Amino acid sequence: MTTNDETTALDKLNRALDSGAFQQVRFTLNNSLRPAEVAHLLEQSPPKEREILWNLIHTDNEGKVLQYLADDIQADILSKMDTDRVLAITESLDTDDVADVLQQLPERVTRELLKIMDQQNRERLEVVLAYPEDTAGGLMNTDTVTIRPDITVETVLRYIRRHNEIPEMTDSLFVVSRRKESYIGILPLTKLLVSDPNITVREIMNTDIKPIPAEMPDDEVASLFAKHDLVSAPVVNKKGKLLGRITIDDVVDVIREDADHSMMSMAGLDDDEDTFAPLMKTTRRRAVWLGINLITALTASAVIGIFQNTIDKVVALAVLMPIVASMGGIAGSQTLTLMIRGQALGHVERSNAGWLLNRELLVGGLNGVLWALVVSAVSIYWFEDTTIGLVIGLAIIINLIAGALAGTVLPLALKSWGIDPALAGSVLLTTITDVVGFFAFLGLATYFYG
Amino acid sequence: MTTNDETTALDKLNRALDSGAFQQVRFTLNNSLRPAEVAHLLEQSPPKEREILWNLIHTDNEGKVLQYLADDIQADILSKMDTDRVLAITESLDTDDVADVLQQLPERVTRELLKIMDQQNRERLEVVLAYPEDTAGGLMNTDTVTIRPDITVETVLRYIRRHNEIPEMTDSLFVVSRRKESYIGILPLTKLLVSDPNITVREIMNTDIKPIPAEMPDDEVASLFAKHDLVSAPVVNKKGKLLGRITIDDVVDVIREDADHSMMSMAGLDDDEDTFAPLMKTTRRRAVWLGINLITALTASAVIGIFQNTIDKVVALAVLMPIVASMGGIAGSQTLTLMIRGQALGHVERSNAGWLLNRELLVGGLNGVLWALVVSAVSIYWFEDTTIGLVIGLAIIINLIAGALAGTVLPLALKSWGIDPALAGSVLLTTITDVVGFFAFLGLATYFYG
Repeated sequence: MTTNDETTALDKLNRALDSGAFQQVRFTLNNSLRPAEVAHLLEQSPPKEREILWNLIHTDNEGKVLQYLADDIQADILSKMDTDRVLAITESLDTDDVADVLQQLPERVTRELLKIMDQQNRERLEVVLAYPEDTAGGLMNTDTVTIRPDITVETVLRYIRRHNEIPEMTDSLFVVSRRKESYIGILPLTKLLVSDPNITVREIMNTDIKPIPAEMPDDEVASLFAKHDLVSAPVVNKKGKLLGRITIDDVVDVIREDADHSMMSMAGLDDDEDTFAPLMKTTRRRAVWLGINLITALTASAVIGIFQNTIDKVVALAVLMPIVASMGGIAGSQTLTLMIRGQALGHVERSNAGWLLNRELLVGGLNGVLWALVVSAVSIYWFEDTTIGLVIGLAIIINLIAGALAGTVLPLALKSWGIDPALAGSVLLTTITDVVGFFAFLGLATYFYG
Repeated sequence: MTTNDETTALDKLNRALDSGAFQQVRFTLNNSLRPAEVAHLLEQSPPKEREILWNLIHTDNEGKVLQYLADDIQADILSKMDTDRVLAITESLDTDDVADVLQQLPERVTRELLKIMDQQNRERLEVVLAYPEDTAGGLMNTDTVTIRPDITVETVLRYIRRHNEIPEMTDSLFVVSRRKESYIGILPLTKLLVSDPNITVREIMNTDIKPIPAEMPDDEVASLFAKHDLVSAPVVNKKGKLLGRITIDDVVDVIREDADHSMMSMAGLDDDEDTFAPLMKTTRRRAVWLGINLITALTASAVIGIFQNTIDKVVALAVLMPIVASMGGIAGSQTLTLMIRGQALGHVERSNAGWLLNRELLVGGLNGVLWALVVSAVSIYWFEDTTIGLVIGLAIIINLIAGALAGTVLPLALKSWGIDPALAGSVLLTTITDVVGFFAFLGLATYFYG
């Protein structure tokens, strides 16, 4: 997703940094590039360059750049700042973005910050901070433009013209009741512009779109936006009072993170992972995943250990056994990936799981037979031994069916137990296909050669 | 991402279908649910139910539902229709969505359709069809509202009020020259609403945002939208003439597909894959991937085959050897996943690849030493043999470094050769860590026991 413009920007900056031309870099960072572009540059820079670049950004721009950075990097930069500087930075940001930044800080610092903030900002912020980061409330912003239902279009137009500026991404005005600021409906700007000036808001407002409860999880918010092709949507509390609005730019971030999440989790990585995380942090995080996977590998070895005598008699078994485990693992992880994506998209649920399990078992069986024939033929030709061909063929069929079964059932079971299938699924699946693969192959061999 | 509302909808529909209450289902599909919700229901239904549901949808709604379906399912439904029906369906759609639908059809049918279409629709459509589906031109829509630079705000407001409706997702009007319809700038509705009625468009229009060339790849369009927080953007041809506009809802689809792509490709699946694809189609697609992976497995077996004599002497080697291959594979695929994500986000390029390779090799080395010590200790205790502990420890260090090297270099090399790293990376990586793992372990064993 790198545009050519940016590649050049990064190259230029690198060369400028190398030659010590800090003035030039400072100018580029603060004047030629947008905050989102500066954030992108920081994200593609190793730690040392990143720190140099960060220090060249004007204090006024720091906040805007910060909000575009991945959480991991944000937290890292904030941890090196004192409270006054953090306060200064947050003053230029939208409420939802300040809330995001504060969530990266230790609670002690957050409390201190709220204390020294001016009252209006604090009150707004406390509304957003009252909800977890991954809910509609944590995602919302408080910069809504509200109108009453009983005024005319002409009055609305006059009222708006008095504003110098309407907040970005405003595609609709929110209609609220006079007394309790309860949400009643929305008035899209496109509707406002084509309506008779003498008509009242009540007559043209849209009440089809239900307001989003502040407690709704962010992935449900994303699917609402997709379903209704929304640009912004109102957020209300339990009593129906309008609290703020969610805009599509923040929803796009949710979609991107959700999509990233499955892939990164399947490799035991964090979806916030900084590509240029420092050596020791990376080593520590990866070590944990390797340790978990070592348990799988040792389990597989233990299964092989049971059949040492058989391998001692027929050494060809040792040569061929990885094929059985590997084919089962590949087939199983295809099923697993399809299921995890299906769950993320909301395609898979209890009522259609039966159909999926049935199809996956049949696919596993058919591909099992196909590749069993191929591998059998290769094995018989290689070791001039028909028994080994029979054994490996049967073992492959068994393991591909086991892979299909585990690939379908594991994500369903894990999800119903509240465990993330993307994180735990692949390790468990490999354990199953390794154990079943080695056990079936060496067990059958022990029977036929015994 | 399933909301509770929908779960109930699917359950209800299933029960109604079971009891044969087609009237009720037909009513729900056509009156209670939005087209995006109906599409979602179709996507979560197995083939037979899907066909029944599709046949219950009114012809008027078919087009709207169709445009929300995944390409794979769209193509499947269209292939069963005659040309007249396709024509009827496309009449209710936006130009870009018609173009998407046409791209799922054989070229013969597309030509025939264009011939029987009315002239205005055909001309619009041909503009969009002139560009590949994955470019700005293929993504754009032709429903722009354009104004001249020399008119006043008041005139613009009067001109707009004459429209009965402004197209959805219109957040800006496009300013074009009188003569050649060249793009000049945009006028956001929010700006229009707060401006003095007597001022001209030229004085308040925004010329900061460069128009998008129709040839720009869709992932660059997506990153432009993210960078500038856009809701819609103008698309121009090489001469600067305004062709149409791209809206955020289509960009969200691009982001979703791109993010899906890496994860699905790494498991050898297509990103358009229908979760409920029929048995034989699924079996065929999966068989290809299993066949490719069999080559990896056979290569690994060939390496083990070289050392049959050593295994014959020390059978414990057969028990422990999968651990070495597996640890290298896991470590390598963590590096590979991080690199593939980094490439997709535009974080990784030539100028910072050196830093990444360096860090990954060090991470591989450090984790190699750590887990070599653990596995060595386990092996020595298990087989009461210090030599085997030494051999497996060294082999693990070698293989984790090989995994880090392959995980970093493969995606860079594949990308520069124009091969998709997400598709080819994992198979090649496993081949390397298997071969290096077995060769290092059994080779060292042959040396020490020889």
